Amino acid sequence: MRDRGLRALDQVAVRAVGVAAAREVTDVVGPRHFLHAGPPLALDELPGPMRGAVIGALVFEREARSPDDAQRLLDAGEVTLSCNHETGGAGAMAGVVSPSMPVLIAAGDDGGRAFSPLNEGLGRALRFGASGPDVLARLEWMRDVAAPILNGALEAVEGIDVTALQAEGLRRGDECHNRNVASTAALIALLAPSIARVAPTSEDAAGVLEYMAGNPHFFLTFSLASCKVVADATHRGGTPGLVTAICSNGVRVGLRVSGLDGWVTAPAPVGRAKLFDGFTIDDACPMMGDSFITETIGLGAFALSASPAIGSFIGTTPEEARAIVEQMRSICHATSSRFLIPAEGFRGTPMGIDVTLASQAGIAPLVNNGLAHRQPGVGQVGAGVSRLPLGLFAEAAGDLAASSGEPDR
Amino acid sequence: MRDRGLRALDQVAVRAVGVAAAREVTDVVGPRHFLHAGPPLALDELPGPMRGAVIGALVFEREARSPDDAQRLLDAGEVTLSCNHETGGAGAMAGVVSPSMPVLIAAGDDGGRAFSPLNEGLGRALRFGASGPDVLARLEWMRDVAAPILNGALEAVEGIDVTALQAEGLRRGDECHNRNVASTAALIALLAPSIARVAPTSEDAAGVLEYMAGNPHFFLTFSLASCKVVADATHRGGTPGLVTAICSNGVRVGLRVSGLDGWVTAPAPVGRAKLFDGFTIDDACPMMGDSFITETIGLGAFALSASPAIGSFIGTTPEEARAIVEQMRSICHATSSRFLIPAEGFRGTPMGIDVTLASQAGIAPLVNNGLAHRQPGVGQVGAGVSRLPLGLFAEAAGDLAASSGEPDR
Repeated sequence: MRDRGLRALDQVAVRAVGVAAAREVTDVVGPRHFLHAGPPLALDELPGPMRGAVIGALVFEREARSPDDAQRLLDAGEVTLSCNHETGGAGAMAGVVSPSMPVLIAAGDDGGRAFSPLNEGLGRALRFGASGPDVLARLEWMRDVAAPILNGALEAVEGIDVTALQAEGLRRGDECHNRNVASTAALIALLAPSIARVAPTSEDAAGVLEYMAGNPHFFLTFSLASCKVVADATHRGGTPGLVTAICSNGVRVGLRVSGLDGWVTAPAPVGRAKLFDGFTIDDACPMMGDSFITETIGLGAFALSASPAIGSFIGTTPEEARAIVEQMRSICHATSSRFLIPAEGFRGTPMGIDVTLASQAGIAPLVNNGLAHRQPGVGQVGAGVSRLPLGLFAEAAGDLAASSGEPDR
Repeated sequence: MRDRGLRALDQVAVRAVGVAAAREVTDVVGPRHFLHAGPPLALDELPGPMRGAVIGALVFEREARSPDDAQRLLDAGEVTLSCNHETGGAGAMAGVVSPSMPVLIAAGDDGGRAFSPLNEGLGRALRFGASGPDVLARLEWMRDVAAPILNGALEAVEGIDVTALQAEGLRRGDECHNRNVASTAALIALLAPSIARVAPTSEDAAGVLEYMAGNPHFFLTFSLASCKVVADATHRGGTPGLVTAICSNGVRVGLRVSGLDGWVTAPAPVGRAKLFDGFTIDDACPMMGDSFITETIGLGAFALSASPAIGSFIGTTPEEARAIVEQMRSICHATSSRFLIPAEGFRGTPMGIDVTLASQAGIAPLVNNGLAHRQPGVGQVGAGVSRLPLGLFAEAAGDLAASSGEPDR
């Protein structure tokens, strides 16, 4: 591909190289300065799960003695928030990152770097806004026990090729956004020998291996950090009009587009969902998280036909999955040469979403979406494939035309 | 399903419960009495790879001081061979099992048990007839280090549900015969914590985890032992005319059929193959191994459309894979309720091959096939999907009609 942005999107290879406290990776975080998912938002706008996560992070960082105390700090405006995406990171769901939280570090062969917070696991978790003693105890164990072992194991193997694992994931029925179970197992197979070697005790090794194996989304952190490296390289590539981030903060969904400064935003939709038993659509928080970065680089919904097994989880048939991927081809500039769909005879996934193509075709991208409960700490209530607001793309295309001095086509 | 044989085929659940020396699992093996793959054959008929494996096993068991010495014993007829399948086992390729070799033990919820030798890994291996010092050193390490750790880990987790792993394998692009890479990783994820705990040293734990992770077919042993338990339960079910084993010894391919005693055999074909670089079809040994037991219970070629990624390995397109599974439905009595193909909207795989249906339709089953080099120790030269000789099914159907006193239809 001659185009520099598309070439980066297709070819930048990314390795997971370490795990460290967020404060060692970025100086944007501080004692009461945390990161969050999605485009910027004000403290008084925080949706329930994100508010819960900030409260939990304040207690975790010992800035508050209790959740009540943390709530007072938050209501008094004594907290600063910045976006993951503007800090070189990407986090699932609330995506809240505080200074001592362990994050995975990914490095691209173009010199780019990005991070993503380690995934806590299923059930009650900070990323859904839970902040109870069990949630904080797990975060402390992740910080004190798991993070140094994982970092040591990654160093021992001289990093893991995440883009290769994603490509192999498509051969194993993962789309590397909402289905990560096979890639998680692949990652365990690659790291387990070194984990056994570097852990201070066999019980610590066993604990870390159980933590990884007990969470089918453990790989998601790796996928997000890798996608963020690739997307940032694409953004720097300078081809105007390519989507280089899709993210949402539970209030507004945002697009980052190469050639445009800042964010194009729209109210966040709840999206189409297959709800877990016992929940209604009124329980769901509108779209939230940075994990749509996977769709940005040709995974997730853009690779849905590689993952027929996800159908029972998100409520799609194999035919719908194929139709979705086919439709996404019409708003993309290229076909991946490395993310191949075996069931389509190893044809690449569509990649390089162009805001003008989407706007002209009247086709907004689809994204795989996990839905959090509106209330902090309840957890996930469903999953689905959701259409982004078309207005985002019309606005971005207009801004682009205006900035280039051309009339809006 | 009302039919007892088909019900067993569909429902017997199998757990991997331990690893032990073959002599502790069956008293058929002895100092110079080994097991082999396929239907019975005489010492002077042994194809190259099987002959090499017997020679290696004699040295491994210290019955011979050298391969030359072993060859003299073999040529003097001082070795006895029995079939795996008649001893409750199933082994890939040459399938040679000697008394101190470690075998996996599988137990069905119907009380049935079966075993399969641990897979040595890629490259030079006894199952392809290699018997050099490297091959024997690895077997010794497997016997002395890996086997007790794996046994301890299996006991610590109270066994592993192999039929559930096979079902999940189909969701991860494995057909559990020629593609086992995702299921191998799943198995590592399940066992790694216990391996870390039970290994005498962290280096032993790391060594066992590397051995498992370094072999994309490690799971095959588990798959074969499990399929053998299910197939034996089906055989005991008594429904006449169901295929309950397909196996080959490199000279003759054999069928075991419920309601018939002994084996129906035909000359082993080489089959259709996609050859690895540098080999021609003349290098290939005719079909060899017990691993076609997977097709017998609705996996392997009978689940090929669940494994589009295998196409580049065996030379099939996704369309051919779907057509193969569809054709196999026409000679099977039932559809699996647990082995589901996500890309077919979670339709079950065909199972319960009926010799009369196959004979009448003129359609012999297809099997996935790994091809060994004719010469001992060279290794695998290719893989493919191969048609069994139709004559086997006509003969079995005739025998069945004769034995039931009915005229051959």
